[in-house]
Amino acid sequence: MAVKKLVLIRHGESEWNKENRFCGWTDVDLSEKGHQEAIEAGKLLKAEGFKFDYAYTSVLTRAIHTLWHVLDGVEQPYIPEEKSWRLNERHYGALQGLNKAETAAKYGDDQVKLWRRGFAITPPALEKSDDRYPGHDSRYHNLSDKELPLTESLALTIERVLPYWKETIAPRVASGERVIIAAHGNSLRALVKYLDNINDDDIIELNIPTGVPLVYEFNDNMKVIKHYYLGDADAIAAKAAAVANQGKAK
Amino acid sequence: MAVKKLVLIRHGESEWNKENRFCGWTDVDLSEKGHQEAIEAGKLLKAEGFKFDYAYTSVLTRAIHTLWHVLDGVEQPYIPEEKSWRLNERHYGALQGLNKAETAAKYGDDQVKLWRRGFAITPPALEKSDDRYPGHDSRYHNLSDKELPLTESLALTIERVLPYWKETIAPRVASGERVIIAAHGNSLRALVKYLDNINDDDIIELNIPTGVPLVYEFNDNMKVIKHYYLGDADAIAAKAAAVANQGKAK
Repeated sequence: MAVKKLVLIRHGESEWNKENRFCGWTDVDLSEKGHQEAIEAGKLLKAEGFKFDYAYTSVLTRAIHTLWHVLDGVEQPYIPEEKSWRLNERHYGALQGLNKAETAAKYGDDQVKLWRRGFAITPPALEKSDDRYPGHDSRYHNLSDKELPLTESLALTIERVLPYWKETIAPRVASGERVIIAAHGNSLRALVKYLDNINDDDIIELNIPTGVPLVYEFNDNMKVIKHYYLGDADAIAAKAAAVANQGKAK
Repeated sequence: MAVKKLVLIRHGESEWNKENRFCGWTDVDLSEKGHQEAIEAGKLLKAEGFKFDYAYTSVLTRAIHTLWHVLDGVEQPYIPEEKSWRLNERHYGALQGLNKAETAAKYGDDQVKLWRRGFAITPPALEKSDDRYPGHDSRYHNLSDKELPLTESLALTIERVLPYWKETIAPRVASGERVIIAAHGNSLRALVKYLDNINDDDIIELNIPTGVPLVYEFNDNMKVIKHYYLGDADAIAAKAAAVANQGKAK
């Protein structure tokens, strides 16, 4: 059979990225720049001849809008889209809404880096009475109490992303369908950790740039043959560095 | 149980509506005005407090973009969307791409009106070798030879819309989910004919205005209690009249 391809794309700048605030499951839209990043990604995929059979995204607007721009770019708004909370960004608990630089100034760069990048470290948990608790949002009404997060580490994010990959997405890729996933820094990191077998320490340092299509190629046994970003290498490196610096006090 | 609600919306002006050309299954996008109509419809639905659980649309860009604007308007881009060829516009056969006024000047207003509105009258059929034959478009690769149209009357359109309504959409509405359908003049006319039990002659004269939410309310037995348009009555009547006049020679 032919090589199987999967494209991952992390949404571009959101209104809160711009303000340097912890976003998590807060449903903040893309900024103008973020919209533009997604439009550019669509153009790039089109120029490289990519076509898709099926699309996955989270239930958060910034990822959905990224997907819509990309589908417009490749002139395929008509393909099926499946939206799942399992592809949502990591839930940042009680940090959601706080400015990252302020939080770093208060708690220190190291603590914030641990919260942001510590593999199994959870930020302070929400109370269920908190307006930010996803149990108050009707889009999550089908989730069980156990599934609704109060806070998440990257380890916990992986626990809810991977079953969706294994049971839903991977079989589709394996069957030869060309799949695109538009999602978030940490839900994509969860996937990349699994696909590339990255250890718990190294994944902390891995920064996926926004708005850059990341292509995975698989053999017939769904083993990764290779992966690569589309586009200009220097621009991609600069984007990844910008993400890494977001948590530092300014 | 509570009253069950269904919202239908016909896409706004497309690039070809503007040029007065027969569109059918040609995948022409909304014009700027058409985008604006859909955005306004979304605002209206939001102002009237509408929320949805599930969305249906065709596999044609102008209907999908209308849906996306509406979902943004009601702040629910996250609900499931299902796109089906069964909700596509009527296939206009060999008339697709022709200017309506020119066609009317050549064949006469009456013949064009019959093609546009004759219940069981099909426009001249496409040859399978024609680029416009849907069998050449990968989005229809799952359709059987029998399902792929060479031309369609309204009667034939109804034949492929109704099974989708009965087997897929209606059960969801019956279960209490709030459903929106973004589609086309003739696929919605097919639905409205069935829901309101309109005869073959009267349906020809029924013009569904573009970009105006049409609300149906059902009782527990899925009998229509009433239906009504949202928005200003005079503006809606003017829109319906504009559609009716499109086929006349100018």
